[in-house]
Amino acid sequence: MNTMRDSSVSRRELAATAERRVQTHAVRLFDESHPYQFDSGVLLAPVDVAYETYGTLNRDGTNAVLICHALTGNAHAAGKSPGGQLGWWDSIVGEGRAFDPAEHFIVCSNFLGSCYGTTGPTSVNPRTSKPYGAAFPQMTVRDMVRVQRELLKRLGVRRLKAVIGGSLGGMQVLEWGVTFPDMVDAIIPIATAARHSAWCIGLNEVARLGILSDPAWNDGNYTEQPERGLALARMIAMITYRSRESFERKFGQARQEGQVGRGVFNELSTAGFQIESYLRYQGEKLVDRFDAATYVAITRAMDLHDVAKGRGSLAEALGLVRAKTMCVGISSDVLYPAEEQKEIAALISGAEYREIESPYGHDAFLIEFEELNRLIKDFLG
Amino acid sequence: MNTMRDSSVSRRELAATAERRVQTHAVRLFDESHPYQFDSGVLLAPVDVAYETYGTLNRDGTNAVLICHALTGNAHAAGKSPGGQLGWWDSIVGEGRAFDPAEHFIVCSNFLGSCYGTTGPTSVNPRTSKPYGAAFPQMTVRDMVRVQRELLKRLGVRRLKAVIGGSLGGMQVLEWGVTFPDMVDAIIPIATAARHSAWCIGLNEVARLGILSDPAWNDGNYTEQPERGLALARMIAMITYRSRESFERKFGQARQEGQVGRGVFNELSTAGFQIESYLRYQGEKLVDRFDAATYVAITRAMDLHDVAKGRGSLAEALGLVRAKTMCVGISSDVLYPAEEQKEIAALISGAEYREIESPYGHDAFLIEFEELNRLIKDFLG
Repeated sequence: MNTMRDSSVSRRELAATAERRVQTHAVRLFDESHPYQFDSGVLLAPVDVAYETYGTLNRDGTNAVLICHALTGNAHAAGKSPGGQLGWWDSIVGEGRAFDPAEHFIVCSNFLGSCYGTTGPTSVNPRTSKPYGAAFPQMTVRDMVRVQRELLKRLGVRRLKAVIGGSLGGMQVLEWGVTFPDMVDAIIPIATAARHSAWCIGLNEVARLGILSDPAWNDGNYTEQPERGLALARMIAMITYRSRESFERKFGQARQEGQVGRGVFNELSTAGFQIESYLRYQGEKLVDRFDAATYVAITRAMDLHDVAKGRGSLAEALGLVRAKTMCVGISSDVLYPAEEQKEIAALISGAEYREIESPYGHDAFLIEFEELNRLIKDFLG
Repeated sequence: MNTMRDSSVSRRELAATAERRVQTHAVRLFDESHPYQFDSGVLLAPVDVAYETYGTLNRDGTNAVLICHALTGNAHAAGKSPGGQLGWWDSIVGEGRAFDPAEHFIVCSNFLGSCYGTTGPTSVNPRTSKPYGAAFPQMTVRDMVRVQRELLKRLGVRRLKAVIGGSLGGMQVLEWGVTFPDMVDAIIPIATAARHSAWCIGLNEVARLGILSDPAWNDGNYTEQPERGLALARMIAMITYRSRESFERKFGQARQEGQVGRGVFNELSTAGFQIESYLRYQGEKLVDRFDAATYVAITRAMDLHDVAKGRGSLAEALGLVRAKTMCVGISSDVLYPAEEQKEIAALISGAEYREIESPYGHDAFLIEFEELNRLIKDFLG
């Protein structure tokens, strides 16, 4: 336990290095003698979890904050990685920001089934000595949350000051509030769903079919990524992560000459609009850092997400939340619209609703940092 | 000419048959001695156009109404086809409806490049004796409109009482107003764009890449349809044609057992949500009635659509419209939002803006007939 706590970045360390270097660590939480039992009943071992921490846990284990990442995110939420990459939510974690490592012990872990160090489809199945691929057990958001809880136990965390996350991260936040009401002081679900909507399931379905229809997918037994399928899935998603207005401001009908990146699609016809190049580039970027079977499994977990499953109605399920709650919507979000966040807030006792006015669509929770910092500080006091 | 006029359904005929049988006719508008010159300069012959008419043209040729169809539509706008199929806008064409064949000579033609009888990618290239496929010249919305004008001339139409259409149909309507201001009394563009937005281009691009990435596409030299690609393209589109609310009301997270249709995707994993089955079914339905190269060419024409091209600013281009104008928006349209229709109306001198309050999204122009009839009647007086 101590060695793990040492791996976090303490206040002194932060002060000592202007660059705030951090490292992702991994811990084996489940093994053959103590396998992980999925929501579905399936047992799996080993299960390793990758995580980062910032700040120091207090003696009582009560100053922790849990950050939950979204679909293609990872544990590197803040600071600079050894490779020099800044964390994806660095702007809200740090001195003077919403979550200050001088005050909080901040944890972010790569969730179960992802491909950034935690056990998932890209992990080697000890029984076959090959990656699980499409044979990895279907995890749910509840599985993600239970594994996170196991990690927190290992780290000595007894209470959470706050659990926060956007999109799929927000789904985990809601499950935290419902499943472990006694452990959480506050939850901040952002631009998310209590039950995945048919519209979102539809979008995930076409993205998955893009992958599954790629001949390189080969029923999930691929050695090379089904590049076009995965890129196509990402492109579909990217369109819904932004808004009509933000694309219009940035691209309109502007043209772009020449080849983009290494050209996963490039021999295929394009009229040369900038927006086409941009989307192809975004698709290619994901191919370079992600995995197709993982994408399929995670989007499926999102579609299966329903906090009410086995708990009565949505109102009854969300009625279990005892944490102080702030639901955050984004004015231009087409995927998890502001209206949906209001509906969630209305079902959680005493919940506040706050809206980020932004033209950036769903992705605003990864862009509008000033507003996010202000909202979180105001809420947590 | 007379023979052509005879092919329309006259008032008497309508009265005589409760079933209002109609037939799609075809006419050769351009041939080797008089080829069609595309917007791009390319020449093509022959060019045949499929069309239907309802009602009788008056002596002056001034009581005509032109209906423009959308992406996968066709000339069969009203009445019953020999196969018994009702026209796609039958509910606004007929006795007592917005366009009454007793009063108007109503024309709907399959636009250039489509696959319902007008020359397009599925037509046989006389030079190769094979279908043009992906080698068909890229048409634009302006090409569609110029070919329509040629058809109207042949039919003896001298003035248009109104030009109306939704979506891509609305793009043609705007081009009509701008290109032939002296020929048109009124235009009614519905849920459309004056210049295709980056967001819509992005959606078309991923749909096209779905087709182009299908191995069966074979660089456009296919003998069997690239079924999965075309179905995928349709599924992406279907999501944007409806609204989050309408899908949520109809499907939510409801499940569905068993196989859908003949199973273009069926061996590919699904969690069995109804919305997945619905989308797969919709994709398959289009495969049975459409063509991949045609889909690619038409979506490209939409992306290239810009009424301002070569005409200065959007304001200058739309300033050319002299027709009485009613722009119609749909409250829940995510593809061509109500806001965009207001922007178009603001740039057309004296244009009215009307909004259809509907939960059905973009497709409301094919659903909300009562409201459409009311709006059109009020507007045309």
